[in-house]
Amino acid sequence: MSRQAYVNGRYVPHAKAAVHIEDRGYQFADGVYEVITVYQGALVDEEPHLDRLERSLRELQIDMPMSRAALKQVTREVIRRNRVTRGIVYMQITRGVAPRNHKFPDRAKPALVMTARQMKPHSPEMLSEGVGVITVPDLRWARCDIKSVSLLPNILAKQQAAEADCYEAWQVDPEGYVTEGTSSNAWIVTAEGTVVTRDLSHAILSGITRASLVRLIAEAGYTLEERPFTVAEAMGAKEAFATSSTSFVMPVTRIDDTPLGNGHPGLLCGKLRAAYVDYMTSLKAFA
Amino acid sequence: MSRQAYVNGRYVPHAKAAVHIEDRGYQFADGVYEVITVYQGALVDEEPHLDRLERSLRELQIDMPMSRAALKQVTREVIRRNRVTRGIVYMQITRGVAPRNHKFPDRAKPALVMTARQMKPHSPEMLSEGVGVITVPDLRWARCDIKSVSLLPNILAKQQAAEADCYEAWQVDPEGYVTEGTSSNAWIVTAEGTVVTRDLSHAILSGITRASLVRLIAEAGYTLEERPFTVAEAMGAKEAFATSSTSFVMPVTRIDDTPLGNGHPGLLCGKLRAAYVDYMTSLKAFA
Repeated sequence: MSRQAYVNGRYVPHAKAAVHIEDRGYQFADGVYEVITVYQGALVDEEPHLDRLERSLRELQIDMPMSRAALKQVTREVIRRNRVTRGIVYMQITRGVAPRNHKFPDRAKPALVMTARQMKPHSPEMLSEGVGVITVPDLRWARCDIKSVSLLPNILAKQQAAEADCYEAWQVDPEGYVTEGTSSNAWIVTAEGTVVTRDLSHAILSGITRASLVRLIAEAGYTLEERPFTVAEAMGAKEAFATSSTSFVMPVTRIDDTPLGNGHPGLLCGKLRAAYVDYMTSLKAFA
Repeated sequence: MSRQAYVNGRYVPHAKAAVHIEDRGYQFADGVYEVITVYQGALVDEEPHLDRLERSLRELQIDMPMSRAALKQVTREVIRRNRVTRGIVYMQITRGVAPRNHKFPDRAKPALVMTARQMKPHSPEMLSEGVGVITVPDLRWARCDIKSVSLLPNILAKQQAAEADCYEAWQVDPEGYVTEGTSSNAWIVTAEGTVVTRDLSHAILSGITRASLVRLIAEAGYTLEERPFTVAEAMGAKEAFATSSTSFVMPVTRIDDTPLGNGHPGLLCGKLRAAYVDYMTSLKAFA
């Protein structure tokens, strides 16, 4: 069976899934999205993802295109039709179609697109060797807490990372502090074993995996500081890692070609990744 | 005859004009655009618009989807098919369709969408009374010189302006200086009669109408200073106006409810608008 997408009320073959050229997502980046991981048939942190989706929509004054219950039904149907057991579901909501005009249209029906796809597990090499990150100036707008599709600076930085054979680009604010990666949150572990990640504000996205990890860190009794850290502090850290719905907990072993600690993935990082995978494994597959 | 759009090689009825849901313009705001005015059958400043289009594409490492000559042919055909004599042509180019992934796809064909529509002249009231602007913090990213479709902050600010019954929102940088409107450049005239508009940098778009006006100001022998100005300086100015391809030269008579000068559109503004309209009138209609 070939891939299918949900587009504004219909399930259509992926190759024919289309939106109107005057969908405001296309002309104005006037929309938001979420990516939810499917792990062994379970939806990981579905409720927090939908909470964040609704918050993003509220911040932009876009209505939910349907009830949360209906959205969950579509999510399950898209996963089922695409036979996804380990992968992701992607949902995007925009303000809808209207003749091009900057101001909000008087009446437009929010548009909903949803896709799902199977994904391979992370390669053993990534986990045993860790990944590299580059640091780049954070060029983004002032409301990175909204998970909008206005991702142009993110993709430019991610491309720079790819060209440097790195996994991520850690974005750095004008004061020299790391904000976050282009699609993941940034973490370090100090020489004393304190875990550090940037505090929530308009400068970063409130990561769902970040939130799960904050909880797991507390449960395991480690010390966490939510505060900004500089590139220099990160380079001098004992460990570093990135978190996101698709990265889980990814060990970082190089920052701008500077190896971290002993050059190998950190012990604490390994424990936190294991705890996170245990957490995902404990979730019940949806019916 | 109903409206038609050009979409990736085909002329299609506007209502059916669609792009794939994985067009990177839709998922990442990974594209650029231009709006060119059609005035009495002439394309206003077509070459500078295409120069800027090519620059925006270069900055994002997106290829032109076709030669400039071919693009000009499509432009003419879209205008002809939609019988536009006084209006605009809108062209948008994105990096194309590829499975969702932040980094640039290895191979994707740039996507081109073009539409044209007739527009009414500005209302006599706007010109005789002038328009109001509000001031808002500039939340945009650090590369506003690229005319990308990453316009979410622009539409949010424009909506605020509309709700305040104003024509535009003038965006203000953290130092208190006006950058530009959400879709127009900002100008003031000092008590001494000096015209002031912000100098070009990554903080603003290099307006094509702005450039024409710089030339017309020089030809008329007025004094121009290209430098930042504060909101306070603007509120104390003798005149103010906004320029864009669709605004031409639009008198501003209120900033955040503070009336400017004598509360009426400025004399110099009126002269510059007349000079700009004369310039457009002098252009030859394309064959």
